Amino acid sequence: MTSVGHRSSGRRAIGLDIGGTKIAGAVVREDGTVLAELTEPTPQNSDARTMSKVLLGITERLRADHPEVVAVGVGAAGLVEWRRGLIRWAPNSAYRNWPVRTELEDATGLPTMVDNDANVAALAEARLSARRYRDMVLLTVGTGVGGGIVLDGRIYRGPTGRGAELGHMIVDPGGPRCGCGNHGCLEAVASGTALTRMGRDAAADDPTGLIATLARDEPRGAVTGETVTRAANRGDPAARALFARLGRWLGVGIASLASVFELDAVVVGGGLIETGDLLLAPARAAAREFAYAPEVRGVVPVEPAAFGSEAGMVGAALLGLEHAGSNRAEPQAGAP
Amino acid sequence: MTSVGHRSSGRRAIGLDIGGTKIAGAVVREDGTVLAELTEPTPQNSDARTMSKVLLGITERLRADHPEVVAVGVGAAGLVEWRRGLIRWAPNSAYRNWPVRTELEDATGLPTMVDNDANVAALAEARLSARRYRDMVLLTVGTGVGGGIVLDGRIYRGPTGRGAELGHMIVDPGGPRCGCGNHGCLEAVASGTALTRMGRDAAADDPTGLIATLARDEPRGAVTGETVTRAANRGDPAARALFARLGRWLGVGIASLASVFELDAVVVGGGLIETGDLLLAPARAAAREFAYAPEVRGVVPVEPAAFGSEAGMVGAALLGLEHAGSNRAEPQAGAP
Repeated sequence: MTSVGHRSSGRRAIGLDIGGTKIAGAVVREDGTVLAELTEPTPQNSDARTMSKVLLGITERLRADHPEVVAVGVGAAGLVEWRRGLIRWAPNSAYRNWPVRTELEDATGLPTMVDNDANVAALAEARLSARRYRDMVLLTVGTGVGGGIVLDGRIYRGPTGRGAELGHMIVDPGGPRCGCGNHGCLEAVASGTALTRMGRDAAADDPTGLIATLARDEPRGAVTGETVTRAANRGDPAARALFARLGRWLGVGIASLASVFELDAVVVGGGLIETGDLLLAPARAAAREFAYAPEVRGVVPVEPAAFGSEAGMVGAALLGLEHAGSNRAEPQAGAP
Repeated sequence: MTSVGHRSSGRRAIGLDIGGTKIAGAVVREDGTVLAELTEPTPQNSDARTMSKVLLGITERLRADHPEVVAVGVGAAGLVEWRRGLIRWAPNSAYRNWPVRTELEDATGLPTMVDNDANVAALAEARLSARRYRDMVLLTVGTGVGGGIVLDGRIYRGPTGRGAELGHMIVDPGGPRCGCGNHGCLEAVASGTALTRMGRDAAADDPTGLIATLARDEPRGAVTGETVTRAANRGDPAARALFARLGRWLGVGIASLASVFELDAVVVGGGLIETGDLLLAPARAAAREFAYAPEVRGVVPVEPAAFGSEAGMVGAALLGLEHAGSNRAEPQAGAP
């Protein structure tokens, strides 16, 4: 029986992370170590058929070098019915009601689990970070803003998995339009998409500024979030002001979450966390400024994700391993 | 053993509800029926000593007519450490670290439980309303805005009871100052206090308008939330516009909660719910307008509290009865 325990060191799974701009896959050991990794850009035509081909391609290439993997886990942006393994909808993608779990299980023969990308990332951070949080929220700041909630050590998904859509909390009702169609979502003001939009506005306002100047060297000549990041890293005040604004909005959302829940920490992950204090310093300042009753409730620590941009793949693999483990064990009351 | 079950029909408790403007007490049967009720204004000098006298006075007067009560439950605005029965802090009151549970148990000899007022009201709504919600949020709109969260049938309090401070979610970061010191809390824009503030501004802007006219008949000649309500009920466009604004902010907060959780309903209680559709219609409209992915996630129903302003007392009594019941039963693993 020792070889089937969750904590046996050797088991490995493939973790897949489906984002708005890229699809990443990795072979992950259950202690979180990434043994191999592959990345593909998310197809422009992101219907389910095209997406499935990319997903299966990555899986088979990883498996060729690691035939020992015992499971597959998938984390995906958007609304996921985790019990059925169905990706119902994502704001920046064409696929709808995509039965990822069935497709991967049929093609690979491996047990597969699918969940929201931020849920699985939160699982990785809560279980494997040095601090092992019991109550935490993960915000993934990338193309969009994803959310994962762990309460009393377990992922909170809501009865059918529709909860934890933290990127669509309303922080600025009169603010800019979000990819989802609403106005003033956290995602509309505190995501990579928001950074790109703000950067383009800044470049238009000041065509001789550093953001506009750097943009002329970009492949398409247009400002991206990376243009703004490069300008900020060179000390450009306009670019740093955009990060201050974006981080402040993130902090406003964090303060609200800290009032709704009682948390050990809010962990920030996703692509933009690689900008470090450019994002985190203003987020921490706003989380403190808007904290409710800080003298008695404290101020929630805002920490960078331990796994960086790998959190989604690692968490997806953990979820796959957990499922594969529970399948081999005796059925338990209340298990999914 | 039948007489100690939670569902035996006869047991009665005193439920106390400590609000910013009044303290209400009732003798409540465990099916939710209110058998007797007393109300006192919250003392201007709201230190713990003064407050305790009022609380004990109400309790002893109710008990004189109903010596059969077996427990006391208290719901209080502010931060409550429910396991210790300590009211730590409330934004509109002078008391600090007030050991309500010990004081009441010592004076009455009855088992006593203390919790946040909105938590106990949520318990009443979830357990005793016709629909019996498994996953719901209660927002109490009175002097402030309180919040109670029931997930999978249980009150969510956070590890020590500091969670569910829903009135202090930030919905308008550039907005008015809240009693808690922050800016743009839900409570700052969607409470009775906000209605009074907006009503005073409206009366100053239009001294011949109905709000200002009605205010001259008030005891102190100043606009209150009730002045605005009376003007709105007479069809005054300015007063109705204030309710539309207040209800819209409430709906923005509700939309955010519906994205954070997956809910059967958001129930609205507290003193202002007596204004009915004046408050609920714009709240529902905004909850719909700002709903995330309504075509797949649905729009959360926004329902008036089944218990009206009695929810706090009823829920407090339920909590007291639950505690008294569990004290007489065998100790259980994991029980508080």
